[in-house]
Amino acid sequence: MARPFISFLTDFGPDGPAPICRGVMLTIAPDAQIVDIGHHVRKYAIRDGAFLLWCAMPYLPVGVHVAVVDPGVGTARRAIAILTERGDALVGPDNGLLVPAAERLGGVRETRVLENRALWLPSATSSTFHGRDIFSPVGAHLAMGTPFETVGPAFDPADLVRIPWPEATVRSDGLDTQVAYIDSFGNCRLAGVPALLAQAVGGLESGKRLRLFRDGGQLESATWQTTFGETPVGSTILYEDSFGTISLADNQGNVAGRLRLAVDEPIVIRAAVG
Amino acid sequence: MARPFISFLTDFGPDGPAPICRGVMLTIAPDAQIVDIGHHVRKYAIRDGAFLLWCAMPYLPVGVHVAVVDPGVGTARRAIAILTERGDALVGPDNGLLVPAAERLGGVRETRVLENRALWLPSATSSTFHGRDIFSPVGAHLAMGTPFETVGPAFDPADLVRIPWPEATVRSDGLDTQVAYIDSFGNCRLAGVPALLAQAVGGLESGKRLRLFRDGGQLESATWQTTFGETPVGSTILYEDSFGTISLADNQGNVAGRLRLAVDEPIVIRAAVG
Amino acid sequence: MARPFISFLTDFGPDGPAPICRGVMLTIAPDAQIVDIGHHVRKYAIRDGAFLLWCAMPYLPVGVHVAVVDPGVGTARRAIAILTERGDALVGPDNGLLVPAAERLGGVRETRVLENRALWLPSATSSTFHGRDIFSPVGAHLAMGTPFETVGPAFDPADLVRIPWPEATVRSDGLDTQVAYIDSFGNCRLAGVPALLAQAVGGLESGKRLRLFRDGGQLESATWQTTFGETPVGSTILYEDSFGTISLADNQGNVAGRLRLAVDEPIVIRAAVG
Repeated sequence: MARPFISFLTDFGPDGPAPICRGVMLTIAPDAQIVDIGHHVRKYAIRDGAFLLWCAMPYLPVGVHVAVVDPGVGTARRAIAILTERGDALVGPDNGLLVPAAERLGGVRETRVLENRALWLPSATSSTFHGRDIFSPVGAHLAMGTPFETVGPAFDPADLVRIPWPEATVRSDGLDTQVAYIDSFGNCRLAGVPALLAQAVGGLESGKRLRLFRDGGQLESATWQTTFGETPVGSTILYEDSFGTISLADNQGNVAGRLRLAVDEPIVIRAAVG
Repeated sequence: MARPFISFLTDFGPDGPAPICRGVMLTIAPDAQIVDIGHHVRKYAIRDGAFLLWCAMPYLPVGVHVAVVDPGVGTARRAIAILTERGDALVGPDNGLLVPAAERLGGVRETRVLENRALWLPSATSSTFHGRDIFSPVGAHLAMGTPFETVGPAFDPADLVRIPWPEATVRSDGLDTQVAYIDSFGNCRLAGVPALLAQAVGGLESGKRLRLFRDGGQLESATWQTTFGETPVGSTILYEDSFGTISLADNQGNVAGRLRLAVDEPIVIRAAVG
Repeated sequence: MARPFISFLTDFGPDGPAPICRGVMLTIAPDAQIVDIGHHVRKYAIRDGAFLLWCAMPYLPVGVHVAVVDPGVGTARRAIAILTERGDALVGPDNGLLVPAAERLGGVRETRVLENRALWLPSATSSTFHGRDIFSPVGAHLAMGTPFETVGPAFDPADLVRIPWPEATVRSDGLDTQVAYIDSFGNCRLAGVPALLAQAVGGLESGKRLRLFRDGGQLESATWQTTFGETPVGSTILYEDSFGTISLADNQGNVAGRLRLAVDEPIVIRAAVG
């Protein structure tokens, strides 16, 4: 039988207490295969964490996914687990962090509040380090086969806290998208996957010319590239980034800075004519 | 049966040879579950390494813990293993690095010098990379079930090299503590756990007002916080940090810089009256 | 039976998509033991990646080694696998990255082009993220026991793309070597292992005085050190670095900057006389 699988994403930083959480998981689930999606999420940036989680999900095995970006720890925000249609369990705070990932894993099948203290560390009662004391042990118990309903009472999935999520919509004359994430190089990940864009602009081949619009006016033109080798420095390109979404970049430049793009900003992409 | 567990802490840096040591361990113990506590310890800072090890221990499974912060490699300092009362084996240099961790795991049961070259890599005779050539292979052999007494001759635990260690003592009118570790944000971890402080100041609830004294004079006042959400920027707080110890911080500021605090400095914490 | 072993080296950066590749591998090989050699290789620096791979190989278990430093992705460069005489499979681009590692594992036994799409991710047909879509899944299938000949057609190992590789040669009066790698501290790793140097200069003991020549003129003198503890700050030393090769350093200084050394520069090391 395969080993229990747990993925782990936090904003603890590379020198933070993630290894302690890993120790907690392995004390409960000694054979678990734990994969760190990353601990470099911007502190308290729920939206960035949700995006990175959403990016990684399709490439991870079915299993437990523990995620902690939790500015509301110690307040009334709920600690929850979400069972997905694919059969995964997502564990973390009820602040919107987990919902896009659940949607990408087929959707939400069941939601429960973590209230069964038998699955927590004893230190949970006196501390507010829920990553260590609640999310890690509950995730590890689920990975070991503890039934999902054991974690606590069910609640209506309609009551899940949700965050704004960038959407892409195919129109008759192009793709309505939004800036989803700006990385440290100023490259912009846009909502949507290449297949959607191909549908919206009548096919995508390397070198195809596209135009970007903002507020009804043309913002920039760009070419679709499947390789960087032949792209001149400074040229503006659209491409499938390594997380599977459409990205906009100035080759070796900072496109977000140059065009003053911000997260959530709506962008329309159309085929260039003539 | 659970897989052999090995934790690993060094000052090799994130781009250093820790993966090579991991390869050595896995060649000997192919099924080992290895957890990196971290490789970001300040170079040669035995005390910082000992502190991070001490912090992590209670949350890790019983197993082997290999730690290498070793400014004296190549000199007469001994390579040792410590068997703890909890049943762990600590492996590393005899320079004080391992002792606080051993105390936190129930205390020292047995100490041995690593002299059995059959457990080393052949390259150990010509190099001074003991992390790779001695500590990693000996740790891996122990994780595989090699009896502890096989590593080399026993010596008196009283002869272990020790380092100054910050202590917390409950007094009738407060807690005598010391600065144990200053992190890169200027937050100060103090000796002692919240339970001790609660005992010393008559209970700890969020918002409780406390006073800090240095050299007999009042240094600062602070409030005990169990969450940061409601704390004004710049306010001085005491809280349980993510490693389980008491910490002092200026919310989004640098308290060590502002108050000129140094490691080992004695601090008294008392309840604020009135 | 031991778990399948996979090592993994890329230039994706610490925040890059390496975890997604790990997820791909574990979906195919759920029990795999994956070791990250590192993801900090300078972007597109094939030579640096080849050197780090070469350094790590002797200390890793026999298994699969996936390496991705791939400026030519999307061009005609081949995706390949190399079977070594030791029994390892190296998987990555045919740009010279894998060849030195293969030589260090006993040499090349067989080379094949990755053309069997049944071993790829379905997304491979539409994207150019070969790390995720081709190298990771092929590596994981090999780790699970898929026969090597399944990956695609064999080709002549003489047709492997090769890169210049620093060599060390024992002469009657010293060691001809080259600068192989300059790290972020300005320390220079030279071609060759200490045993070669010992042969070339008539034995190596700590404190032995050596002379370095460049272009026929004396460049510097240095002492062979097996420990740093007794070395004065600023002194120039030769030593076995933690990756097993000969290194040149100014103790706490930057020797590459001071002597204007560059990668590939030829250096001769001789014993100092008198």
